[in-house]
Amino acid sequence: MYRAPVDEIAFTLKHVCGLEDLQKTACHAELGDDLVDAILTEAGRFAAEEIAPLNAVADRHGTPFKNGEITTPPGWRDLYHAWIEGGWNGLTASPEAGGQGLPQMLSAAALEMWNSGSMAFAIGPTLTMGAIEAMEKHASQKLKAKYLEKLVSGEWMGTMNLTEPQAGSDLNALKARAERNDDGSYRIFGQKIFITYGDHDLTDNIIHMVLARLPDAPAGTKGISLFLVPKFLVNEDGSLGERNDVRVAGVEHKMGIHGSPTCTMIYGDEGGAAGWLIGEENRGLACMFTMMNNARLAVGIQGLGVAERAYQHALQYALDRKQGRAPGDKGEGMSPIARHPDIKRMLLAMKSRTQVARAICYACAHAIDMTNGADDDDTRKFWSERAGLLTPLAKAVSTDFGVEVASLGVQIHGGMGFIEETGAAQHLRDARIAPIYEGTNGIQSIDLVLRKLPLSGGDHIRGFIAELKAVAGEVAASNRPEFGATAARLAAAIEDLSEATEYMLAAQAEGRIADALCGATPYLRVAGLALGGALLARGALRSAGEPALRLAERILLARNFCETTLCETAGLKSDILLSAEAIQAFDAEALAS
Amino acid sequence: MYRAPVDEIAFTLKHVCGLEDLQKTACHAELGDDLVDAILTEAGRFAAEEIAPLNAVADRHGTPFKNGEITTPPGWRDLYHAWIEGGWNGLTASPEAGGQGLPQMLSAAALEMWNSGSMAFAIGPTLTMGAIEAMEKHASQKLKAKYLEKLVSGEWMGTMNLTEPQAGSDLNALKARAERNDDGSYRIFGQKIFITYGDHDLTDNIIHMVLARLPDAPAGTKGISLFLVPKFLVNEDGSLGERNDVRVAGVEHKMGIHGSPTCTMIYGDEGGAAGWLIGEENRGLACMFTMMNNARLAVGIQGLGVAERAYQHALQYALDRKQGRAPGDKGEGMSPIARHPDIKRMLLAMKSRTQVARAICYACAHAIDMTNGADDDDTRKFWSERAGLLTPLAKAVSTDFGVEVASLGVQIHGGMGFIEETGAAQHLRDARIAPIYEGTNGIQSIDLVLRKLPLSGGDHIRGFIAELKAVAGEVAASNRPEFGATAARLAAAIEDLSEATEYMLAAQAEGRIADALCGATPYLRVAGLALGGALLARGALRSAGEPALRLAERILLARNFCETTLCETAGLKSDILLSAEAIQAFDAEALAS
Repeated sequence: MYRAPVDEIAFTLKHVCGLEDLQKTACHAELGDDLVDAILTEAGRFAAEEIAPLNAVADRHGTPFKNGEITTPPGWRDLYHAWIEGGWNGLTASPEAGGQGLPQMLSAAALEMWNSGSMAFAIGPTLTMGAIEAMEKHASQKLKAKYLEKLVSGEWMGTMNLTEPQAGSDLNALKARAERNDDGSYRIFGQKIFITYGDHDLTDNIIHMVLARLPDAPAGTKGISLFLVPKFLVNEDGSLGERNDVRVAGVEHKMGIHGSPTCTMIYGDEGGAAGWLIGEENRGLACMFTMMNNARLAVGIQGLGVAERAYQHALQYALDRKQGRAPGDKGEGMSPIARHPDIKRMLLAMKSRTQVARAICYACAHAIDMTNGADDDDTRKFWSERAGLLTPLAKAVSTDFGVEVASLGVQIHGGMGFIEETGAAQHLRDARIAPIYEGTNGIQSIDLVLRKLPLSGGDHIRGFIAELKAVAGEVAASNRPEFGATAARLAAAIEDLSEATEYMLAAQAEGRIADALCGATPYLRVAGLALGGALLARGALRSAGEPALRLAERILLARNFCETTLCETAGLKSDILLSAEAIQAFDAEALAS
Repeated sequence: MYRAPVDEIAFTLKHVCGLEDLQKTACHAELGDDLVDAILTEAGRFAAEEIAPLNAVADRHGTPFKNGEITTPPGWRDLYHAWIEGGWNGLTASPEAGGQGLPQMLSAAALEMWNSGSMAFAIGPTLTMGAIEAMEKHASQKLKAKYLEKLVSGEWMGTMNLTEPQAGSDLNALKARAERNDDGSYRIFGQKIFITYGDHDLTDNIIHMVLARLPDAPAGTKGISLFLVPKFLVNEDGSLGERNDVRVAGVEHKMGIHGSPTCTMIYGDEGGAAGWLIGEENRGLACMFTMMNNARLAVGIQGLGVAERAYQHALQYALDRKQGRAPGDKGEGMSPIARHPDIKRMLLAMKSRTQVARAICYACAHAIDMTNGADDDDTRKFWSERAGLLTPLAKAVSTDFGVEVASLGVQIHGGMGFIEETGAAQHLRDARIAPIYEGTNGIQSIDLVLRKLPLSGGDHIRGFIAELKAVAGEVAASNRPEFGATAARLAAAIEDLSEATEYMLAAQAEGRIADALCGATPYLRVAGLALGGALLARGALRSAGEPALRLAERILLARNFCETTLCETAGLKSDILLSAEAIQAFDAEALAS
């Protein structure tokens, strides 16, 4: 079973990722430590006691689709209603709309625990939160008055409708159409695929956010508009009216997250689905990006959540399962496998990656909160660039780690790991989607290299690297032998990051975009590992007042991460600098012919 | 669909892994190139046309267990009978028993293609082949006369029964019992789990190889004996007699290879299953090792087979799917994603890993064949040590690569990769068992470090490293600019392997066994990568007479592997040398309390 690591989460928020910075801003001045602890404790209780027990049930049951209707797993509807009654849905929404106005950092922490409970459950509300944010920023007062409060309370849920069969990573190819009605509303036509929680039986209405093109729209992404399309039309008094012209055509049979219905949606088969514009015509992509950036962090948090769950699962097995005799073990009988060096290596790799993912995701949330709370333009620019830099890292590093950790968890279970009843395999099957959706991790790497490195002419990333170097210096200055090779390895990794960064900036300055693209994936990993090592080290350095066992553990985790995983950076840097020519020479079409 | 890469397989056998050495030995003198090509072509045709189309069917259908009986997937029985009618089951068995006496190298090549067709299908006959080999080497003439011919023809299938709930990696804990009967036979009692093809409807009889203890046996693995236990007793005239006292208690619900029935077997519930001793009492483990070593190579080949299938699958998708505009692409419309640099990187990583797995597995088969065909003791000792060294590498590297390649295949498919109907996810689910069974890859690493490095006082591994260095020297001497950084990277990786090897040998010489165990997993990877780079380079160096496209492709693959994946070795070496102290300090029990 899952135990919410509330202490570790609180420590990471407060001492690694700068929650106190927020508490100094005007908008979160009243956020005391007591309130933070109370929220984390209660979110953790709900995740462990209410959500987690239904995770395997949902995996087995899935979301069957019959006679045009989807049934969610047994217990799912009660769970959802208990969850919204706890007020969890409106955590970050503005108080004017009935929300609690809490920072993204707290939302990230709660979301981690809900994802540890069940990734398939937690993803539904995540999309509603995205819809809320898009509406708060871009919708008219009239639309807000009609829809926002019920989305914030969770009485209705929201969806994001971007993907079409020919338009996945490339939204230029989007074909869904919108036609203007005389009353200012629109008729929406088209097919959308991979729509998460596109239909279900949890709420009485579902509010779809749909990207479509107007007849006179420019080609490409500059001709895309965002529309609100409710499943049921809403009367002026707020009561539900007629069924809108939108239906589910099918549900996907997926490798994992079986409890999350992934739908094909058909809009406008019977004359057009009624839709209302959000923001301006042809500016839909900007509105959608509001949702997508937060969704990218939220997907990173999925990787984190499933990693924590998989680690706990494997740790318990390794403590219970006895095989062979570990070096140094005396007496009769077999040792728990947790005492075998090779299993220790795997457990440490799981735990350190989980903690890195946590720290990077919370640091990203912190940057978003600091942007939102900035008093002046310079501060806002700095934190907005930092959030931009950290978003692809949080998404890709945490989701890659989610898969790596879940796969190590399967391995620690041995043959039992391959048996579905054990549960370890589900974590891996669930985790495997996260590097794909909300922009594949390849696209995150490209975003990092082509859009984020050049921010402020490269000065933002250089400043970021200088911050990491300062942490390595602090470790060296601490003179604690328990840190082993931490300071040296961290400094070397940051130097690798620095060299790789200058290579990437130079390649772009010289117009060698393809060279930069060839190295984007290893570049993102170098950056993520260097940042991860620095964040673990910062946690260890800030643990002085903690219980001895916690201090020792944090130092050991930082040290192990720097002495094992962080050693990758030298090779990744060589790869980035060396491999572009041969990669570009690879001509799959010629070889296939 | 799957297309058997017969040309690439033949090239690897002949020009990379030394098939010609075998053709010079007495036992395989008549093995001409024409025969080799004919066998590969026909095995490839069978794999592509007969086996491959049933792979997805078997995944969906599984092996339902009802009323004590298991049903194999639709088409499976006809497929199996077509396969044995082709004479494939007796490929390596001795001609005296009705086999074809062909070398392991050819068997490995055929097995690769059958595993590409369907891993769940190919694993069944693999176990029969293991049973045949154990019987040929250790069974009495009387047992051979009664059982061997029907196992070789495939009329009956065989199984391996080692694992019990408390005895997985550690066979010391084995509890199954055997009691002597007056007629020289035995009664067998106990439960065995994870028994592949433990029961099924493909053949009329199943011959189980079962490890059990005699009442007066010494404790530990020196008290284990091997017994032959048929599902149906066999009369003196060879006809089937009574049902033996062995039954299936259940079938596992697994993450992958759904077409392969994984059974819990109960022996002796009704007074004892009739069994016959193979080899000597208490010497069962030695007999079982005969099966296990070949089974380890066979599992490595599973990793290879699924990697090739996953690569072909992803390549086809990348050629068909269009999204975005690749750098340098002119004109209207979207580019096939195979032209995007990040996708090229992934395709190259998949293809080079697949080719490395192929070369390592065939090199291992070559060493086994050279051992079997040796004319003198020195030659036999050398090749036996080489086979010992290559077996854990073939098993662990190929199965790790199988998972990595299948996971990259999912990633290239984007959202479609997570949808089961696409088929990419099945490759990953199937591949995930291979790093676990037949000795986890952690155990392979320990075997490599503790048992194989010390062979001939460390001189065997040092000689092996010298052979790899010679290849790096050949690349440098070739002076071909197309090789890019291949020679330099390869030499650096081999130097990393050399340093890590000396560290491991010194640790053992100094009694620091736990230090060696901490680094075993990264050590195996350094060795596998260095060997893989050298084998790819050797293929490129030997391609001079090949068509220009093939030559260019082999150089490009070797170069890409050395410029990307092989860069890992520096970090892995640092990890091995640095990380043992902190890993040993990790005390999961204290942290959990």
